[in-house]
Amino acid sequence: MNNYLQQFISEKTPLIDAEMNQLIQSKNSPINLKDSMLYSVNAGGKRIRPLLVLAVLADFGKTTSEDALKVACAAELIHTYSLIHDDLPCMDDDDFRRGKPTNHKVYGEATAVLAGDALQTVAFGILASLQHTSPEKVVKLIALLANASGADGMVGGQILDMEGESSTLTLDELEEVHRNKTGALLSFCIEAGAILAGADEEELNQLREYATNIGLAFQIQDDILDVTSTTEQLGKTANSDTASDKSTYPSLLGLEGAKQQLEKYHQDAIECLSFIKKENSMLKHFADYIVQRNA
Amino acid sequence: MNNYLQQFISEKTPLIDAEMNQLIQSKNSPINLKDSMLYSVNAGGKRIRPLLVLAVLADFGKTTSEDALKVACAAELIHTYSLIHDDLPCMDDDDFRRGKPTNHKVYGEATAVLAGDALQTVAFGILASLQHTSPEKVVKLIALLANASGADGMVGGQILDMEGESSTLTLDELEEVHRNKTGALLSFCIEAGAILAGADEEELNQLREYATNIGLAFQIQDDILDVTSTTEQLGKTANSDTASDKSTYPSLLGLEGAKQQLEKYHQDAIECLSFIKKENSMLKHFADYIVQRNA
Repeated sequence: MNNYLQQFISEKTPLIDAEMNQLIQSKNSPINLKDSMLYSVNAGGKRIRPLLVLAVLADFGKTTSEDALKVACAAELIHTYSLIHDDLPCMDDDDFRRGKPTNHKVYGEATAVLAGDALQTVAFGILASLQHTSPEKVVKLIALLANASGADGMVGGQILDMEGESSTLTLDELEEVHRNKTGALLSFCIEAGAILAGADEEELNQLREYATNIGLAFQIQDDILDVTSTTEQLGKTANSDTASDKSTYPSLLGLEGAKQQLEKYHQDAIECLSFIKKENSMLKHFADYIVQRNA
Repeated sequence: MNNYLQQFISEKTPLIDAEMNQLIQSKNSPINLKDSMLYSVNAGGKRIRPLLVLAVLADFGKTTSEDALKVACAAELIHTYSLIHDDLPCMDDDDFRRGKPTNHKVYGEATAVLAGDALQTVAFGILASLQHTSPEKVVKLIALLANASGADGMVGGQILDMEGESSTLTLDELEEVHRNKTGALLSFCIEAGAILAGADEEELNQLREYATNIGLAFQIQDDILDVTSTTEQLGKTANSDTASDKSTYPSLLGLEGAKQQLEKYHQDAIECLSFIKKENSMLKHFADYIVQRNA
């Protein structure tokens, strides 16, 4: 991994973790619910979403403000809630996530459902608590997060993903699943960072396209890793897609075809960043990292 | 039921129903998810929460604006999502709700979990879409809804309720369950209506107290009906509390004691309304209705 990105991640991740913990700790809620929420928030994870929010700000020469950190955490909390619900027996029925027992294995299904529900609420609550951002921008951020994470975004994508498991998808259908399931929330992160940074309309458009490209690249690399890695390397069951006959980029394009597609999205993403004049664009480093990561 | 209230309910309920349907229909989401969301939204229900929002406005002499209707629907959508998740096999495991099969019995558990998730998101999304309310007020409404419905409100109350099932609660503990589980969202409705109506701080305080009182009255009446009604009258299993040895107002105070407590909260609620000069206070009629309803 690039040194600047490495340093950026090392510096920002503890801030993100501390903020999320503080946000949940401060709730006046039953201890068991709080523990369950904190368990999944602290169960690891690369923090790609919140880091992307902060990376946009860095590329605009802005520091990590209190409000930026909260927006970053809102995205990660939505991601975390979706993982808890995704792992439930009635959904993917996963016992392990990032090498640890899943939330419902530790706290039981009922608490896991409610912890996910409450984490979604916390995410919207944080955005409504921003102190140094204009109410107009706050409302815009909340509308964006609702769009990205709801029925026409992430949750819709999860439904498409479930429905796709019982049939072979076309490449377009597969892309639609991923644009919704993972792409929409990643796009929120980029756009939210851009709004906080005061990007103009043209920059916003470029960054939206960047986000779409890294979103798809991210998913292709996930699919490739599922085929080429061991369970130990991934911290979750490898070859799960092949085992379940699920449509993936490698299954539709072959491993080489998937790698070519990955590289195309990677290059397209980087081209969108041409307006950024900084020598060390964190978003550029992120695009590289997303396609090169091995877990 | 009082004639004015009857007329108010007959007039407003179709508006609420139409608005919720339109909000969900307009989502660009998988048809199965949309159907599942609409199923629960249209599965009946007395619409007490949204009607309370509009009743506050009526008592302040305000008509039902587009924005007021959206705020009203936000509360009902949060309520609806909580019922879907509450009914899941891992939670209350209910097969029927309001005389109809529960969401997961019709759409399966996975879709029911996701429909609930997406309804929560819609609720916050609507608030962020208000067109004729200042962004400052919108942010305040969103913060209030997050507080009322999350870990330190409704969801926290559901955890306390679950935990309470395995032990005998004191009256204070039982009140805390209900203040969170149902009271917090009812309070949101009253407070949100007051904010939209432009209530001053003193009026807000009175209305908050009114909300607390009708919230507890509502729950006591629920407990009483569980003991005194048939399954057919309720549209859900009667005597379920006795069967499960759950702490309720009748089990802690006896049926007569519960009825006295109900009347106390009823009177306390009405006293909070002394500042309302309208002859036909809808909030007064609502307080009467809540304690007199038989389903």
